[in-house]
Amino acid sequence: MILTVTLNAALDVTYHVDALTLHTSHRVHAVAVRAGGKGINVARVLHALGHQVVATGLAGGADGQRVRAELRAAGIAEEFVPISGETRRTVTVVDDDATVFNEPGPLVTPGEWRCFRDTYRSLLARADAVVLAGSLCRGLPYDGYAELCTLAASHGVPTVLDADGEVLRHGLAGRPTVVKPNVEEMGRVTGDTDALAGARTLRGLGAATVVVSRGPAGLLCLAPTGTWSAVSPAPVSGNPTGAGDAAVAAVAAGMVTGLPWPQRLADAAALSAAAVLAPLAGDIDQQAYRRLLPHIRSQRLEETDATHPYR
Amino acid sequence: MILTVTLNAALDVTYHVDALTLHTSHRVHAVAVRAGGKGINVARVLHALGHQVVATGLAGGADGQRVRAELRAAGIAEEFVPISGETRRTVTVVDDDATVFNEPGPLVTPGEWRCFRDTYRSLLARADAVVLAGSLCRGLPYDGYAELCTLAASHGVPTVLDADGEVLRHGLAGRPTVVKPNVEEMGRVTGDTDALAGARTLRGLGAATVVVSRGPAGLLCLAPTGTWSAVSPAPVSGNPTGAGDAAVAAVAAGMVTGLPWPQRLADAAALSAAAVLAPLAGDIDQQAYRRLLPHIRSQRLEETDATHPYR
Repeated sequence: MILTVTLNAALDVTYHVDALTLHTSHRVHAVAVRAGGKGINVARVLHALGHQVVATGLAGGADGQRVRAELRAAGIAEEFVPISGETRRTVTVVDDDATVFNEPGPLVTPGEWRCFRDTYRSLLARADAVVLAGSLCRGLPYDGYAELCTLAASHGVPTVLDADGEVLRHGLAGRPTVVKPNVEEMGRVTGDTDALAGARTLRGLGAATVVVSRGPAGLLCLAPTGTWSAVSPAPVSGNPTGAGDAAVAAVAAGMVTGLPWPQRLADAAALSAAAVLAPLAGDIDQQAYRRLLPHIRSQRLEETDATHPYR
Repeated sequence: MILTVTLNAALDVTYHVDALTLHTSHRVHAVAVRAGGKGINVARVLHALGHQVVATGLAGGADGQRVRAELRAAGIAEEFVPISGETRRTVTVVDDDATVFNEPGPLVTPGEWRCFRDTYRSLLARADAVVLAGSLCRGLPYDGYAELCTLAASHGVPTVLDADGEVLRHGLAGRPTVVKPNVEEMGRVTGDTDALAGARTLRGLGAATVVVSRGPAGLLCLAPTGTWSAVSPAPVSGNPTGAGDAAVAAVAAGMVTGLPWPQRLADAAALSAAAVLAPLAGDIDQQAYRRLLPHIRSQRLEETDATHPYR
């Protein structure tokens, strides 16, 4: 099975209003509530595609209970570790566009983090791949993901890391099998704006393979066996939130099925496009996915920099 | 004891952000959570002044539990009736001013409403006054407050009704002892913009006494025994939310202590000003209240309209 880790899970709440006007009162017409967080979105996509998945992470308070209950109701096995803090909410106010409010996450105690690692270790025993995705709660060490990557490697389980900023930078020290930043996340850690240059820097910092998501420009993969890019044949419009999570799901699924990188990258590009076409993050348009997949071919890139260490 | 009824209680959540910008993402620095709803605010003020109070109403889901737990933690006796729907939230985003999002209330079933009335009836047996304040949940009849007023009267218990729109209009049919609209609420039901004219219309519609809150212009009271106005000697600046609830608390307290209307109205004006000076609705600045009270005298008004029916 594929284990997804969501340390800073969220209850994603959406408010539909007529028009958002600063410093006035608004009547909310409809409230939508859904379990969120990058790891949970990845678990949803994998589950929709028929993969065995277990979602773990940290969950606390009434909203943590709702996150867990919603996953179980969706048929997704969950092994979240309870914490005393409250799982955060995100509130998205939608008029013709989205205005988002992100609550700070709960404070996690050292004992709770130890307890999580015990659960994680026991889940690793039956995991074929691990996805580590999203931000860390307050109280967790910056190198939390590095430790989880190292633990997975010691069990022979490959890892996909999707994080940002200092959390990504420190996570790289754990030598994740794959990191999947978008261009902005890559730039924040490497200072590079070019995807190929940035991917090389990330490999230098510890990742075995780097997949960079570039929005409508598609995906770039720098692996020990080669460099490829893949892009959806026609641009798709919709909700880009969750497109990266769908790419991560495809990368992790390919680890388990042994799909070679060129096909795996094409699969990730098709699944990303199918996620953009679905209105909610974590959902995919399965018809679009099946329609797009045969039309996406990964292109092998000629590398111009003969000096980089992994050529 | 004084019984407060909050049929559409809320969990009031406040998000502090740097600057609210339409259609962007915001990091919430601090989250404050508090039980809200007009009746609950009145209960807080009465409790702070040392009055015996019981807060009842409808509460459902995890947020309903939080509302109840918070009242108990504040030392306020509560007898909320559980419902299957979820107690609503209000989300107030504060930068330099407040932007408010009001979730719709839960849907209440006829059985839950019956169950509430049974609880209410048993609480009336030990109530000296009843406060009915705020909006009604979906599923409740428009004349819900009228029914609760009639029930109270049949137990010999006087009522204060603080409502708006159709809920106020239909509530008047229950002949509440006092209604306490602000000028806008009065205008919506009567079409009058003048407080004295509007108060007369409201008495004609069924209220024995009308107290109109006019913001910084103070309070006007049209009672069977006379007409008075009272105003804080110096304008106060602060948070006007909850000022009306403080006035309702003073009116209800005066029912129990038998304070004559001129003194009761002065008390309500002082308590309103003390509520404006406290940052949270439901709180009062007790020092300011004690300081202001001796300086406020109700003024008897000469009525110019000799034809109104209650002269």
